[in-house]
Amino acid sequence: MTDKPSVIRETDDEARGLARRLLRSARYVALAVIDPQTHFPSVSRVLLGTDTDGAAVILVSALSAHTRALEADQRVSLLAGEPGKGDPLAHPRLTVQCLAEPVERGSPAHDRLRSRFIARHPKAKLYIDFPDFRFFRLLPQSASLNGGFGRAYLLPGEDFRIMPEPTGNFSGRELELLQDLVSTKPELAQQIAIGRCGQKPGKWAFCGLDRAGIDLIAGDLLVRYDFGHHIGSQAELYSVLANTAYPIP
Amino acid sequence: MTDKPSVIRETDDEARGLARRLLRSARYVALAVIDPQTHFPSVSRVLLGTDTDGAAVILVSALSAHTRALEADQRVSLLAGEPGKGDPLAHPRLTVQCLAEPVERGSPAHDRLRSRFIARHPKAKLYIDFPDFRFFRLLPQSASLNGGFGRAYLLPGEDFRIMPEPTGNFSGRELELLQDLVSTKPELAQQIAIGRCGQKPGKWAFCGLDRAGIDLIAGDLLVRYDFGHHIGSQAELYSVLANTAYPIP
Repeated sequence: MTDKPSVIRETDDEARGLARRLLRSARYVALAVIDPQTHFPSVSRVLLGTDTDGAAVILVSALSAHTRALEADQRVSLLAGEPGKGDPLAHPRLTVQCLAEPVERGSPAHDRLRSRFIARHPKAKLYIDFPDFRFFRLLPQSASLNGGFGRAYLLPGEDFRIMPEPTGNFSGRELELLQDLVSTKPELAQQIAIGRCGQKPGKWAFCGLDRAGIDLIAGDLLVRYDFGHHIGSQAELYSVLANTAYPIP
Repeated sequence: MTDKPSVIRETDDEARGLARRLLRSARYVALAVIDPQTHFPSVSRVLLGTDTDGAAVILVSALSAHTRALEADQRVSLLAGEPGKGDPLAHPRLTVQCLAEPVERGSPAHDRLRSRFIARHPKAKLYIDFPDFRFFRLLPQSASLNGGFGRAYLLPGEDFRIMPEPTGNFSGRELELLQDLVSTKPELAQQIAIGRCGQKPGKWAFCGLDRAGIDLIAGDLLVRYDFGHHIGSQAELYSVLANTAYPIP
């Protein structure tokens, strides 16, 4: 929705940060597509992944109605952010309009998304290689953040974009850098989850990395630690994580 | 989605019962509309109510984007059924395509919906009478139930319809019958919540009644007890509830 009633607030860094965290820490979303036969919108639940450029990622079966719909019309919308206790409307949530882009099986993009998706959704291993399953990348075009009553913001799609770092020291190497981190500093996951993401102690592990932040998982819980800026090297990654590994005083 | 791939199962009474419970016990849903400017689908979170004829009910502000969208195109979709622990896709959920029908403020329908909505969402009292808020009735046209992996069903909109009882002994008197029940047999709410709906003891109270069932609320929890058939009188209501007031052996 692009018109701007008076209830929309000026988007600031806090709103942008919340919007990004809502999208990047969502295990699942409500996905709306246009039914190609009836032209009704149709909304269903899908697991969510992310790509290193900030795209949202879904894994869908060609047999499902939403897949046939987004093959016919690439315009989709997703709703991220789940209510906790109390009034459902008091909890922040994010609507993102996206263009869906199919990912060819066997392509480098497919391999990257497969690794990232399994790290975040281990049970997807059971069906991820079925021949009817494929990934779509959902490229954010615009978004609407509702941070609770009277706290509405509009954001352009670019606010979710993670630009590649040009030297090749980081971009394209995210999986390798993550594996290195997991094997050398696994204890950092627990420290960051507790100290920076406000989580309780658990079996926290890193499950995704990009220039803008890192994803942590513990059973059903998924959290995102956004670095606050885009990093460009392994040295910077370790420096940023070292500085975040102690609880905020 | 009306085409029927081979993964769709034959709809039986169990599937119909589950679909109705998912819709009628939803405190909130993801609501998808068509953005009148971009023609993207757009999905947001709304509180859900129900009407005595089985329509879903939403209360929306004229200032919100989804309201402007459904004024321009009455075709909407909603997703009901929230995941619990574990794999989000293992939990049943329901997609319903509906036609949205505005409800005039001050009409008998508005008064009925206002009472039912407040009983289910007490905090809505804070804004329900703001001049920009209004109800829309969402009339189910078709639905898709996903009961977990490999358990997909299609249902026509009529499966959600509660037909009026012609003599006037029940239909049109639901609020009065409910108030009578609440004042004479409040303890039945707790007994039905525990014995028939599998809930833990709590401050259970009745919050909605129609010919097909009764809604119970305790804080954040909302459950639906479907009678299994459409009742037609106060005597039948008390008889049905008396028979359900003891735990299933």
